[in-house]
Amino acid sequence: MDRPDAGLAGLHRYAGTLTVKPQLSRRAARLTSSLIRDILQVTQRPGVISFAGGLPAEELMPALDFSGLAEAGRQYGPSEGEPALRSLIAQNLSALGMECGADHVLVTSGSQQGIDLVGKLFIDEGSPVLLEAPTYLATIQALGVYGAEFQGLSLAAEGIDPEALRQAIVRRRPAFVYLTPTFQNPSGCCYTEGVRRAVAAILDETGIPLVEDDPYRDLAYQPVERTPICAYLKRAPWVYLGSFSKITAPGLRVGYLAASPSLFPGLVRLKQSSDLHSNRPGQLWLIRFLSSHELDTHMARMIGVYRERRDTMQAAMLRHFAGLAEWRVPAGGLFFWLRLTCECDTLDALQAALARDVAFMPGEPFFPAGNLRYPALRLNFSHAAPEKIEQGIGVLGELLGEFAGVPGRHRGASASV
Amino acid sequence: MDRPDAGLAGLHRYAGTLTVKPQLSRRAARLTSSLIRDILQVTQRPGVISFAGGLPAEELMPALDFSGLAEAGRQYGPSEGEPALRSLIAQNLSALGMECGADHVLVTSGSQQGIDLVGKLFIDEGSPVLLEAPTYLATIQALGVYGAEFQGLSLAAEGIDPEALRQAIVRRRPAFVYLTPTFQNPSGCCYTEGVRRAVAAILDETGIPLVEDDPYRDLAYQPVERTPICAYLKRAPWVYLGSFSKITAPGLRVGYLAASPSLFPGLVRLKQSSDLHSNRPGQLWLIRFLSSHELDTHMARMIGVYRERRDTMQAAMLRHFAGLAEWRVPAGGLFFWLRLTCECDTLDALQAALARDVAFMPGEPFFPAGNLRYPALRLNFSHAAPEKIEQGIGVLGELLGEFAGVPGRHRGASASV
Repeated sequence: MDRPDAGLAGLHRYAGTLTVKPQLSRRAARLTSSLIRDILQVTQRPGVISFAGGLPAEELMPALDFSGLAEAGRQYGPSEGEPALRSLIAQNLSALGMECGADHVLVTSGSQQGIDLVGKLFIDEGSPVLLEAPTYLATIQALGVYGAEFQGLSLAAEGIDPEALRQAIVRRRPAFVYLTPTFQNPSGCCYTEGVRRAVAAILDETGIPLVEDDPYRDLAYQPVERTPICAYLKRAPWVYLGSFSKITAPGLRVGYLAASPSLFPGLVRLKQSSDLHSNRPGQLWLIRFLSSHELDTHMARMIGVYRERRDTMQAAMLRHFAGLAEWRVPAGGLFFWLRLTCECDTLDALQAALARDVAFMPGEPFFPAGNLRYPALRLNFSHAAPEKIEQGIGVLGELLGEFAGVPGRHRGASASV
Repeated sequence: MDRPDAGLAGLHRYAGTLTVKPQLSRRAARLTSSLIRDILQVTQRPGVISFAGGLPAEELMPALDFSGLAEAGRQYGPSEGEPALRSLIAQNLSALGMECGADHVLVTSGSQQGIDLVGKLFIDEGSPVLLEAPTYLATIQALGVYGAEFQGLSLAAEGIDPEALRQAIVRRRPAFVYLTPTFQNPSGCCYTEGVRRAVAAILDETGIPLVEDDPYRDLAYQPVERTPICAYLKRAPWVYLGSFSKITAPGLRVGYLAASPSLFPGLVRLKQSSDLHSNRPGQLWLIRFLSSHELDTHMARMIGVYRERRDTMQAAMLRHFAGLAEWRVPAGGLFFWLRLTCECDTLDALQAALARDVAFMPGEPFFPAGNLRYPALRLNFSHAAPEKIEQGIGVLGELLGEFAGVPGRHRGASASV
């Protein structure tokens, strides 16, 4: 496939200029602006109370003791990951009801890489993808780079509407459906068992692959149904994306995916061409930590603290956000999702909040382009200490009151617990 | 961009079958067979003397002591990498004559990720790419996945022929030129200064970007010109790919790239959507190691051992390969590249060698598809101990003699030192 011969004249088209503008791929032209990157950088300014990122609390992370481990991880390793780690992951997934052996587990460089590999495996320019609206921002970016055309599925308290899923599948024949049924980012939504089973039945019936992203599963603050939809599938192809970042230390950059036999070999080869394999010291540390008695103690402590922070934020919002927003208390995960009752510009609001040293994440970027959106905020409750949560929510309440132009704000909170 | 509505009838096309064949991207269809993966797995069988992989010697790798480091690397980090590591890298590159500040250094998950990011940034289906023939196997795979159409440039002792490069640029208008001018894998070739300057001049003149892959630079066993071609560029865009895997521990999966200002922002965003950032404990360890007094001692020892192994292999080949192959002694890097004088099938030869517990890498996969190729072997000399090198080369000599059908093999060696 030769390009048209530009000839020697073409060669000199840059002559006389000092810099050369390179010819990039169409993919590169789809790189979205780095607004969110910029926001997150500002929020890391010292003194800012940030509810913006999705950062786990560093003070709760386990100590990273590599002693006795690292020497074994110096050489190149297998692309699929360390065998002992793959086995541990497969055991966990089997305990959740999934049919999954170690042979179908691929260790990734964080769960984000799993999303990228899925995009690489499935998406051509213009490939339709169904996902929740709102959905995880970085998924929109990572799949968008490959040229995915998104259609959003609205989220209710119980999850997506299975009938709407069926209709969208008939209409779009998507490459796959991407769902985060458990403690979704940003909405906090956790699908009911009925919706999980109904979604699985539709995927089995239509043969459309499911990509189930499940990084928050272990952060459950109350009893709630959370069997993976993948566990209910009988014939549709599937990829399950898992993370250790939320329960251990994201700086390790070790996550995983599991996939049905028809998808696994392609994912492994794409992993190999992406970075050969994931870092071995991190994998070896995880093998020891996940097999240790520390794990249960650590998880109980982390969940206790996060539950307390969630409840602190909820109590503060009930006091300060009455009439300004609607939200549900999430049963797990890291976020509150607030639908604002005013039609305010959340980017303007963010500017104003940053001027008062408080940060949040505007909701709009979580909606795939072209989908219905509404003014919303995402507030993280895992990172800031309780007193900072109190203080920051107070500031945000004042500010939202000003933006909404509401003089008295005592009309009763709209939270449903 | 809706796909044609398949209707309800379409939805049931899988009904009655037990498994569903997923519809993958055209990219996935380009995944090549895993022949080489299979070969490398066999060569790791205990008892096999392997010259096949490109593995550094594990016994020479520095101890990985993370004490006092790991706690600082638990949280999410910047996509660009740890600032102190970026500074150290920029200092090194500046010392090589490149105009490069820390702002244009991106830490990657191994140098392989740099190749993948370059493919993602530049290549659409059918984009022409010029590279050496033979070239690094995993580059052919990684760029091929994005749909690159390769044209190979023949390698002589001095490097590629600049005039052939110019003609290929005129004819193909490539997205970029990918070169490994220093101790190339697989050929061991190290470009002369004249060729380096001539290549840079042609790229400046035509404005075609250079991707310079330089993982072997520090493994020099004799004085030799090795200024990066990027250092000679005045206006062409460039990406320089660097590695720590060959001089420290590949299991860390930390490499880097540096890029000209027009390319850097896109590469950072693609990095972010690929895996957010590279693992932080590995980066923090490298900051300490690269700044320590241990580095020089370590490098001197490693280079001494590798030089000795290279010389051992050379002496053994002069004894055993006379008349069977032609090769040059590489001034650095990890490989001998042997052009066989017979027209034998190197895959058959590999099978026979494995039956005698010796492994090598057949040369054919290092040639981009459709390019002239010749029967060749790549032999790694860094991994096996000297006595194993003696023994393995003896076995290979016998075997190649059988394949060549040469009764007496004492016609003088063809090596040029």
